[in-house]
Amino acid sequence: MQKQITKKNERVEEVFELFIKHIQSFLSEANLNHEEYTNFVNWADRLGRTGELPLFADVFLETHVLRAMYTEKPGTQPSLLGPYFIEGSPLIESVAGQPLVLTQRENEPGEVLYFKGNVSNVDGKPLKNVRVEMWQNDASRKYSAFDSDAPRYNFRGHFFTDENGDFVIKSIVPLPYSIPTEGPTGEFLDYTDQHPMRPAHLHFMFEANGHETLITQVFFEGDEYLETDVADGVRLDLMTTLEDKGDHKESKLNFVMRKK
Amino acid sequence: MQKQITKKNERVEEVFELFIKHIQSFLSEANLNHEEYTNFVNWADRLGRTGELPLFADVFLETHVLRAMYTEKPGTQPSLLGPYFIEGSPLIESVAGQPLVLTQRENEPGEVLYFKGNVSNVDGKPLKNVRVEMWQNDASRKYSAFDSDAPRYNFRGHFFTDENGDFVIKSIVPLPYSIPTEGPTGEFLDYTDQHPMRPAHLHFMFEANGHETLITQVFFEGDEYLETDVADGVRLDLMTTLEDKGDHKESKLNFVMRKK
Repeated sequence: MQKQITKKNERVEEVFELFIKHIQSFLSEANLNHEEYTNFVNWADRLGRTGELPLFADVFLETHVLRAMYTEKPGTQPSLLGPYFIEGSPLIESVAGQPLVLTQRENEPGEVLYFKGNVSNVDGKPLKNVRVEMWQNDASRKYSAFDSDAPRYNFRGHFFTDENGDFVIKSIVPLPYSIPTEGPTGEFLDYTDQHPMRPAHLHFMFEANGHETLITQVFFEGDEYLETDVADGVRLDLMTTLEDKGDHKESKLNFVMRKK
Repeated sequence: MQKQITKKNERVEEVFELFIKHIQSFLSEANLNHEEYTNFVNWADRLGRTGELPLFADVFLETHVLRAMYTEKPGTQPSLLGPYFIEGSPLIESVAGQPLVLTQRENEPGEVLYFKGNVSNVDGKPLKNVRVEMWQNDASRKYSAFDSDAPRYNFRGHFFTDENGDFVIKSIVPLPYSIPTEGPTGEFLDYTDQHPMRPAHLHFMFEANGHETLITQVFFEGDEYLETDVADGVRLDLMTTLEDKGDHKESKLNFVMRKK
């Protein structure tokens, strides 16, 4: 036990020392004068005090970590968790003969979407009873529990795959949206000449015994922000299409989980 | 005018892009898994929300910027401004035949110090009427306006050099102190196995027309933390001695300003 604790502390020490080393490389290469240094620290201080640091990290850095870890691996590519996940979403109960319905208000605005998924593992075996957590924005392009007036768990919920690893969930088509631009993250976007938009996406988290938890997103062909997603979260195997079914749209995607 | 603005924005863009590049190098080299990434972002978020980010930057990064800029240059080496400087210190009036006295309470605890300085430029010419800003901690090892109960400008003030570039100021001997350890900066020190102490020092800022503003600190031989200063602020040309004069101590140092 003692040894494990020591090992863990050594790892933390290594990470922090690498952090300082690379920040110092940044300062050397940028060759900041004292005024530029002060301006930069003031920006970072505003980023920190406004609580935007996780937003900034998730949007500009998380993808980098995930790409480095998974690009060469089999199975569905992860995409960023993002800053809008919250714990404690409701279980969505199945009613015989009815599709699951993602938590929403009565007369929820938006275009109805039926999303059909299948979850298997890298050996092609369908996975039953996988816990599927899903969250997305609403027709006002906002996430509940953050900038929206909707109830806390609106368009948030979890459910389980059936005997064949399948699920069908009724929801609405998500919409592209802008990450917050009023604060220091917006300043950064201005400075680096980037738009603040993310393409429309559904968030998913899959949990199954003996498998790596898969956190990912689903995107839709034709979205104008696919190529320039501010968070760089789009991957080829996360693309689906919105099929027109008259009074609703339908999308399908298969997900493949890695064994532990 | 338009051109200058564009140039400035290009510089800011360059700095931010280098920042992202080096942070990504850090993430690649550290090879964080998703849990380690999340823990690191949570630590950075706490650092930001508690307002400790400037403290962290000043202690662990500012010295690096200053070394890179000044080590090869003539004139007194700068040292970090640190997080405890505040604007608006009182002018310390001279009374004929008396030394200047740094702002303090009646019966201020501490060992009396007479500090004698001379300011010249890199050509050896004494500089008169240089504005000298001085600040330091008190006998409780605290800085006014921060963690101390003392009046806001206790042990803070500014004055001017005389015809020969000289000044004498009566104060107390500053003491080694610990940077704050209760927050995320303290966590960092724990992880990286560093003590939180700074050797005793006086802070000075010199301003003179036609010269680069000199922000620096003065240290005392024999201090136990000179070699392991948590902020790495000690420079050889900033060292002085505490001479014993019976009822008080005396220290001297000459400062050399760079021309613009």
